[in-house]
Amino acid sequence: MANITKKVSWSSRGDESGAAGEETPLLNGSEQSRPLRQMSSGSTVFQIGRLSTVDLEEEITTEEDSVRGRPKEIPHNEKLLSLKFESLDYDNIENQLFLEEERRMSFMAFRCLEISRWVICGLIGFLTGLIACFIDIMVEQLAGLKYRLIKENIVKFTEAGGLSISLLLWAALNSFCVMFGAIIVAFIEPIAAGSGIPQIKCFLNGVKIPRVVRLKTLVVKVVGVIFSVVGGLAVGKEGPMIHSGAVLAAGVSQGRSTSLKKDFKIFEYFRRDTEKRDFVSAGAAAGVSAAFGAPVGGVLFSLEEGASFWNQMLTWRIFFASMISTFTLNFFLSIYDNKPGDLSNPGLINFGRFESEAMEYNLYEIPLFIAMGAIGGGLGAFFNFLNYWLTIFRIRYVHRPCLQVIEAMLVAAVNATVAFILIYFSTDCQPLGPDQSEEYPLQLFCADGEFNAMATTFFNTPEKSVRSLFHNPTGTYNSLTLGLFTVTYFFLACWTYGLAVSAGVFIPSLLIGAAWGRLCGILLASTTSTASMWADPGKYALIGAAAQLGGIVRMTLSLTVIMMEATGNVTYGLPIMLVLMTAKIVGDYFQEGLYDLHIKLGSVPFLHGEAPATSHWLTAREVMSSPVTCLNRIEKVGTIVDTLSNTSTNHNGFPVVVQVSGDDEVLFDLAIDENIRCMSFRCNVLIFIATQVVGLVTRKDLARYHVGKHGLEELLLAQT
Amino acid sequence: MANITKKVSWSSRGDESGAAGEETPLLNGSEQSRPLRQMSSGSTVFQIGRLSTVDLEEEITTEEDSVRGRPKEIPHNEKLLSLKFESLDYDNIENQLFLEEERRMSFMAFRCLEISRWVICGLIGFLTGLIACFIDIMVEQLAGLKYRLIKENIVKFTEAGGLSISLLLWAALNSFCVMFGAIIVAFIEPIAAGSGIPQIKCFLNGVKIPRVVRLKTLVVKVVGVIFSVVGGLAVGKEGPMIHSGAVLAAGVSQGRSTSLKKDFKIFEYFRRDTEKRDFVSAGAAAGVSAAFGAPVGGVLFSLEEGASFWNQMLTWRIFFASMISTFTLNFFLSIYDNKPGDLSNPGLINFGRFESEAMEYNLYEIPLFIAMGAIGGGLGAFFNFLNYWLTIFRIRYVHRPCLQVIEAMLVAAVNATVAFILIYFSTDCQPLGPDQSEEYPLQLFCADGEFNAMATTFFNTPEKSVRSLFHNPTGTYNSLTLGLFTVTYFFLACWTYGLAVSAGVFIPSLLIGAAWGRLCGILLASTTSTASMWADPGKYALIGAAAQLGGIVRMTLSLTVIMMEATGNVTYGLPIMLVLMTAKIVGDYFQEGLYDLHIKLGSVPFLHGEAPATSHWLTAREVMSSPVTCLNRIEKVGTIVDTLSNTSTNHNGFPVVVQVSGDDEVLFDLAIDENIRCMSFRCNVLIFIATQVVGLVTRKDLARYHVGKHGLEELLLAQT
Repeated sequence: MANITKKVSWSSRGDESGAAGEETPLLNGSEQSRPLRQMSSGSTVFQIGRLSTVDLEEEITTEEDSVRGRPKEIPHNEKLLSLKFESLDYDNIENQLFLEEERRMSFMAFRCLEISRWVICGLIGFLTGLIACFIDIMVEQLAGLKYRLIKENIVKFTEAGGLSISLLLWAALNSFCVMFGAIIVAFIEPIAAGSGIPQIKCFLNGVKIPRVVRLKTLVVKVVGVIFSVVGGLAVGKEGPMIHSGAVLAAGVSQGRSTSLKKDFKIFEYFRRDTEKRDFVSAGAAAGVSAAFGAPVGGVLFSLEEGASFWNQMLTWRIFFASMISTFTLNFFLSIYDNKPGDLSNPGLINFGRFESEAMEYNLYEIPLFIAMGAIGGGLGAFFNFLNYWLTIFRIRYVHRPCLQVIEAMLVAAVNATVAFILIYFSTDCQPLGPDQSEEYPLQLFCADGEFNAMATTFFNTPEKSVRSLFHNPTGTYNSLTLGLFTVTYFFLACWTYGLAVSAGVFIPSLLIGAAWGRLCGILLASTTSTASMWADPGKYALIGAAAQLGGIVRMTLSLTVIMMEATGNVTYGLPIMLVLMTAKIVGDYFQEGLYDLHIKLGSVPFLHGEAPATSHWLTAREVMSSPVTCLNRIEKVGTIVDTLSNTSTNHNGFPVVVQVSGDDEVLFDLAIDENIRCMSFRCNVLIFIATQVVGLVTRKDLARYHVGKHGLEELLLAQT
Repeated sequence: MANITKKVSWSSRGDESGAAGEETPLLNGSEQSRPLRQMSSGSTVFQIGRLSTVDLEEEITTEEDSVRGRPKEIPHNEKLLSLKFESLDYDNIENQLFLEEERRMSFMAFRCLEISRWVICGLIGFLTGLIACFIDIMVEQLAGLKYRLIKENIVKFTEAGGLSISLLLWAALNSFCVMFGAIIVAFIEPIAAGSGIPQIKCFLNGVKIPRVVRLKTLVVKVVGVIFSVVGGLAVGKEGPMIHSGAVLAAGVSQGRSTSLKKDFKIFEYFRRDTEKRDFVSAGAAAGVSAAFGAPVGGVLFSLEEGASFWNQMLTWRIFFASMISTFTLNFFLSIYDNKPGDLSNPGLINFGRFESEAMEYNLYEIPLFIAMGAIGGGLGAFFNFLNYWLTIFRIRYVHRPCLQVIEAMLVAAVNATVAFILIYFSTDCQPLGPDQSEEYPLQLFCADGEFNAMATTFFNTPEKSVRSLFHNPTGTYNSLTLGLFTVTYFFLACWTYGLAVSAGVFIPSLLIGAAWGRLCGILLASTTSTASMWADPGKYALIGAAAQLGGIVRMTLSLTVIMMEATGNVTYGLPIMLVLMTAKIVGDYFQEGLYDLHIKLGSVPFLHGEAPATSHWLTAREVMSSPVTCLNRIEKVGTIVDTLSNTSTNHNGFPVVVQVSGDDEVLFDLAIDENIRCMSFRCNVLIFIATQVVGLVTRKDLARYHVGKHGLEELLLAQT
């Protein structure tokens, strides 16, 4: 994310009024040699042309590509806001040419465009579902292979002794898988690291993140996540689905691929940031929908993260993409599972059915749930706090690709070792009943017909472990197993997030929460005899999972709906909502959410949904950047190149000014550097109508204000 | 809805620049006797002050109150747009006083306000849930009383002969209940008629509908709907819940009641249209949530109908209100049902659990579902077409309250008669098995141990009939029963909607659809032996219900989610979505949705989510109203009264103009009659910066453009 996108701006207004201005440039310092031109402070009257931007990203980034992923060793300060990020051109630039083109379009043409949008959204949903299906099947096959191999090995050596060979095999297999996953991320496409949710949040927020929606990123993401999960890391495959859906959406809707250098010459009307961003939001929703079997949750996720305006048709299209995505995944998985047409198994993660009869909750349990929400919030804040310092450490010292690969391999090996030691020393043997659905039950030192309970949590993909914690009958795990598992997995997951591998944090969070939630249930049941009647450990595992996930990511509305849809049960809506709300309030008191933290560490000028409560008295004059670099209507190429290559300006859109002949006539137009998203600062168009350009307000000038502990605080702008 | 709301406008800007202007008014025709002042076309420079509005509704409506509900006999033309509706003042008027007040508020004060908002939303949800609970229990008790009485009577006369006495009793009981329900609506509060959804749609759209959120309206609505349902009309109690929630929200959030003439002196900060409208949207959502047990559907309903911007905190609060509402209803109903704490029974209408094992659908059924969607769309359009002409007939000839009461009583009697005749001549006898959950099975002329199947559809509240059609086992109804029921209920429901009673159209639509949907299932099952394996009549009843409801009301996103939540099953999401989409596309081809139709018949200036596709080339000059009535900064009261009482102007906000002394200095400000909602016409602030006010653009000037069969069409503005 180190390239600087520069833009060329020109006036696209009619020629009639500007002719005089072209002949007599009144700009201060209009010599060609001077790269930075600032407006004179005279009182002459100008016409400020509308801005049009051309993205020169491709040309300029090529030379910088070779150094990406290797940031300089700079002390990372979250009080900085980087100047290198540009906004998406979200508004259509309504100049004469644009309006004339729109005017030439018939009513039928608009209809056809609308139908194309629907077709594209259907395609996005279909492809996202297919990718989810591919990831799921690959992970299941490869992980099955790995676990069967290790299990056979363990069985062989349990009696004969020499289990250390099993440990070595486990660690080696893990490290090998993770090495492959880390190499492609670190060396080929570093932006594919992590879940991709912070990057998609930024993109939907209107920030241009280079290479985030490229085909290459998608391939690395998909292959990478398969190897991360198979490699036994404390990660999930759900987060990356959101990023994958977004990339697919960008690719399909634009009808071309930068990675393949191929232009399919279709959907050319949609090649503008407005349309692209809309489709990307549909793709992200389709990703959520495929990941959790939650089409409504997907729509709400996209709205929560990306919407400034409520657009009914867009929302409906997003919903369509989400539905198609879940449906496609379901349909192909049902064929894979030899139950063709059985569509009742939605999502990559399936929480299983929570039957309301078996898992009713009572009014007096609500305070308990809220208390668990508070615990989740606290633990989540602690998780984020640790990860924050770890990330700063990584930025400073682990920024070389080879170091990143080694760290990832180390984590994989440690994962195996810790799991092995815990399983080895565990004495929690449980009878192998017909209720158990363990695929790889490890007997180890347990009696015949029994299995090691600790192994069910570690010796499986995290998704399956979550299901086991939710649904395994009372008594499957003892308190010590759950406690030890919670502590170790907490630190492992915290260490894992931020590695140079493609991986999500949803499932590890759910797993940690499910473990301590189940522990809460067991402890509750042991207090009184009546409590053992209602304190079902599976129910408390669910609440704990919600609390922990909420405490880490701090999503609220969409997460409630995602959890509701994943459990397939509306009655859990209220407790889950209360838990997530409590987790958010408690967590926010200590530390920001994990995604926001990483966005901040990236110094991205992210604009939040609402302006800080106490920012009413800020005037445009206080927030604007000045002085402003302006251009004449006719400029030498050299001047423009100089202006563009000057990195000391605070803005990268340049007003084109034209002198108007008369003094008594005032013409004006909007001079805005970039598209200031209307959602922030309650929709004011900032107009500087005067005889000169005195300032420009860009996204960065607005994003630097935020509410801290002591009221309104200001971040510094820096060329990091 | 016949009163005209007038507003006084004044300048609230600082005094320094306007002093000169006050001494030398330069307005053309500034004599005090002239009520309508229009700007001169001179070239003098003015400062146009910001508009502030004071609502004089209360004072002016009192004298007109006596004639409400009795509109003049005017030929109703849907090509007219009434000038009598005003916009809500949705934007805060950011004048000096407002900004100073905001500036004085500390960070803590903003926090407190935010907490108050949450408390209010919780209260709204709680009270809405209570009201839903009250309606439910009252209807169940009174309807139970009625049906038991009639059943006893029928049993008595079946053997002895003289069943006509039973018919008379039934018709009399129905008419009596409906008479009471109609009297309070027609004589006390006509705005409480119908479901209230069109009115709430308009309110959320930003149109001020007089008396729509008054306490009196709520009381009439709640009592009215109980009597309508008990009176055996083809109506539901769900639509009115949305209106009830909205009224509660307006009342609670404003901390005062106009009906009670009581001011509780709390929440005074929220006494502005911005805040009020936000709370009303929460109330409407809480209403949906209570009605259908669909908290997420409620949120989406409010967003779909009312949102221009996406506001995360507001959405979250709306969700909170919805959750509390479902929870409250559930909790109190569980106590009423003697199962305290069992919260698995959400909503007034409960579709019952659709177990995925029993009611799976296959890929090849999807085309069948889509075909049913098309049927639903066609039937819905026919329903709306009939109701449209009926409504025009009613506006012309049935506008006196006593006539309205008589019509309602007639419909109630006809309902009983038609039901009685159908039951009487029905030969569809079914064995009374343990599966049946009929509360009032009528044996009539069936053998012992059997009951009349036609009676299960008519001799019950519509909610219970819907559940029976969804869940009764195969063979409970024969095709003739379902066909006859569909046809008669279709016309009865169509006749009923628009009567002067408080009643909803959701349940009748679902019932009609469930009947013909079940019929489709039975016919399908009879075609081939394999089809009888999968063509479960209950499943097709559900699809038919969705298709019919979608075809009549044309809601899409929110309705899908409402249906999903009401069935408690995510897997039905895709077919329901496809069915609703098809129904909407087919229905829209013939006729608008029922609510939009009634809004149009009310000549309300309703602004749709998006500007018509081909409206790009419209300029402000073309749409604006001119000439503009302007006021001086200092005016005699008489002039203002004259201006306000002049009904020939197209606008009811008046720019206050001030001459500026100098010629070389240009000051300007925004002159907008009413708050033009940013959502429409993609967020342009219209500024007339010139030496004179040339025009004003109001909601009505924008609302009159719509896409007809032949492209962009224009409605006429009229003082209806």
